[in-house]
Amino acid sequence: MTTLLPPALRTARELVEPTLRSAVARLDADTRRVGEYHFGWIGVDGAPTDAGGKALRPAMVLAATETACGTAEHGVPAAAAVELVHNFSLLHDDVMDGDTSRRHRPTAWTVFGSSAAILAGDALLAVAPEVLLESDVPNAAVAVRSLLTTTRVLIAGQTADLGFERRQDVDLTECLGMAHDKTAALLACACSIGPLSAGAPRESVRALHAYGTELGMAFQLVDDLLGLWGDPEVTGKPVLSDLRTRKKSVPVVHALTSGTAAGERLWELYEQPEQLTEAQLCEAAEMVRRAGSEDWTRGECRRRLELAEAQLEVGSLGDTAALGELAEFIVRRKL
Amino acid sequence: MTTLLPPALRTARELVEPTLRSAVARLDADTRRVGEYHFGWIGVDGAPTDAGGKALRPAMVLAATETACGTAEHGVPAAAAVELVHNFSLLHDDVMDGDTSRRHRPTAWTVFGSSAAILAGDALLAVAPEVLLESDVPNAAVAVRSLLTTTRVLIAGQTADLGFERRQDVDLTECLGMAHDKTAALLACACSIGPLSAGAPRESVRALHAYGTELGMAFQLVDDLLGLWGDPEVTGKPVLSDLRTRKKSVPVVHALTSGTAAGERLWELYEQPEQLTEAQLCEAAEMVRRAGSEDWTRGECRRRLELAEAQLEVGSLGDTAALGELAEFIVRRKL
Repeated sequence: MTTLLPPALRTARELVEPTLRSAVARLDADTRRVGEYHFGWIGVDGAPTDAGGKALRPAMVLAATETACGTAEHGVPAAAAVELVHNFSLLHDDVMDGDTSRRHRPTAWTVFGSSAAILAGDALLAVAPEVLLESDVPNAAVAVRSLLTTTRVLIAGQTADLGFERRQDVDLTECLGMAHDKTAALLACACSIGPLSAGAPRESVRALHAYGTELGMAFQLVDDLLGLWGDPEVTGKPVLSDLRTRKKSVPVVHALTSGTAAGERLWELYEQPEQLTEAQLCEAAEMVRRAGSEDWTRGECRRRLELAEAQLEVGSLGDTAALGELAEFIVRRKL
Repeated sequence: MTTLLPPALRTARELVEPTLRSAVARLDADTRRVGEYHFGWIGVDGAPTDAGGKALRPAMVLAATETACGTAEHGVPAAAAVELVHNFSLLHDDVMDGDTSRRHRPTAWTVFGSSAAILAGDALLAVAPEVLLESDVPNAAVAVRSLLTTTRVLIAGQTADLGFERRQDVDLTECLGMAHDKTAALLACACSIGPLSAGAPRESVRALHAYGTELGMAFQLVDDLLGLWGDPEVTGKPVLSDLRTRKKSVPVVHALTSGTAAGERLWELYEQPEQLTEAQLCEAAEMVRRAGSEDWTRGECRRRLELAEAQLEVGSLGDTAALGELAEFIVRRKL
């Protein structure tokens, strides 16, 4: 059950967490408590815990900064800012999606109420650019603009995701666009904002941004496969969870729009007003497979990874071993 | 019923609205629609309307910039940014407070749903610093830091306000602190951020910040009096609305903590589990009066205005006529 974590993840937590903690410590006492609970630093009772996330995005920021600038430390303010924006979006998405569990713990809104979770998300979004603007990185303002543009893309992605729930006519292109907006855009920002803030050459920043976009797409495709066939003990969600909630993830939309008999049958199941039985859930999963959508998604994931790697050739970058380890971890996790 | 609007308000709308509109136009189509509806630029059906707010804060930004720098135009990006942050907080507060009407129109969440309103608020908060950072004002980054620090204070104020609803022991100092955080902090920012962004002398910025703080307190105290005795046709709320919802506004908390017989009676009414009858509402309002809290609030409002005016003497500022007109408008409105 244990997954071997790349050393870059532990190093990133050690380097970035002090900045993150001091950013959250600036919030008013009540909002701070919600933020600290959400980050896994305290329990419901306020006592310290160690339930923090993997700090994947901060690790990407540091690895990319090291690759482009020779040292990871210059990426610390950007890493903290990206992690704050990521957690702003988690806090708000959990409220909107009604999700009750995250990282194997009750979500913040279930503990403190929706309003407190909304306010905590707002506060993380407000404090994120502050961290960058107060630091001594040479291009803080440019980096903040990149972070905020990305935040608007995240918002567009969540808006599309909520819209898809009500729509019958979502096609694969829109679905991939939503995956880009919800996931790949922030990975692209994570892979480029450290070098951008530290004044790395423009072509390196551009290559790392493109790398992050492709890697982010692969990341989301793996996530979509985990939402169907992931191990509940690892994902913290029931088996076939995305089918239970009739989520329009990439493999599902691929199957629904495949024009195959399996796709037709999946439509029937998705349109059924009653909850799907366990037998129907298994049937739905089998239809996704038969429509060729599991294979297609795996193939697309591999293709995106190759596109990502190709970017590292063109950016006149230094050693990309740490970045590669993180990429490997992202796509191999929990499947 | 018509209130004479100071010319500075119309001028501010004309100067700032193009920047505001182009900022909102950057959001994804769905989120943009919610934002444009909220700003009063379009109706529920998407057709253009002219139901915009008074643009009081942009007008304060421009008047303060003119006073400190000799020209209002330099304050335009800051004015747009402040208005975006103000409207972020309105969108989110309306969701949290369950308010169904604003500026005589249905609130955004009642039309588009809570999630869409939360996302639109998020997007306005994200785009606000972008407007400043993209502009050519000399001190954009410093101004953004001031705006974001203020945003955290706004969040603290809303957190306190929500907490007060559940608490029996709110004292006057806390209540005035909440009024500062929810209202005065953003007015202080509005009065100082334009000059700050344009590079005005530090003592002018400091004086204008203090001016805005005191004016903002006066503004909130007037608002609290309007919540009790304001004309429903003007406020858009039922008569004695704050008593209906048992809001712990400044005059109410002053009365509750006055140690008078009238204060005791007001407690009994506020603790009554059933809705207050019209007769009880009138009695509650009379208790606020008898406890001396209406007079005290009016006196405190005057005192704050005098403190504000005194600040304008110390800041080596230019002509303060436009600022003064706006201040006059704020405290004379609708009472």
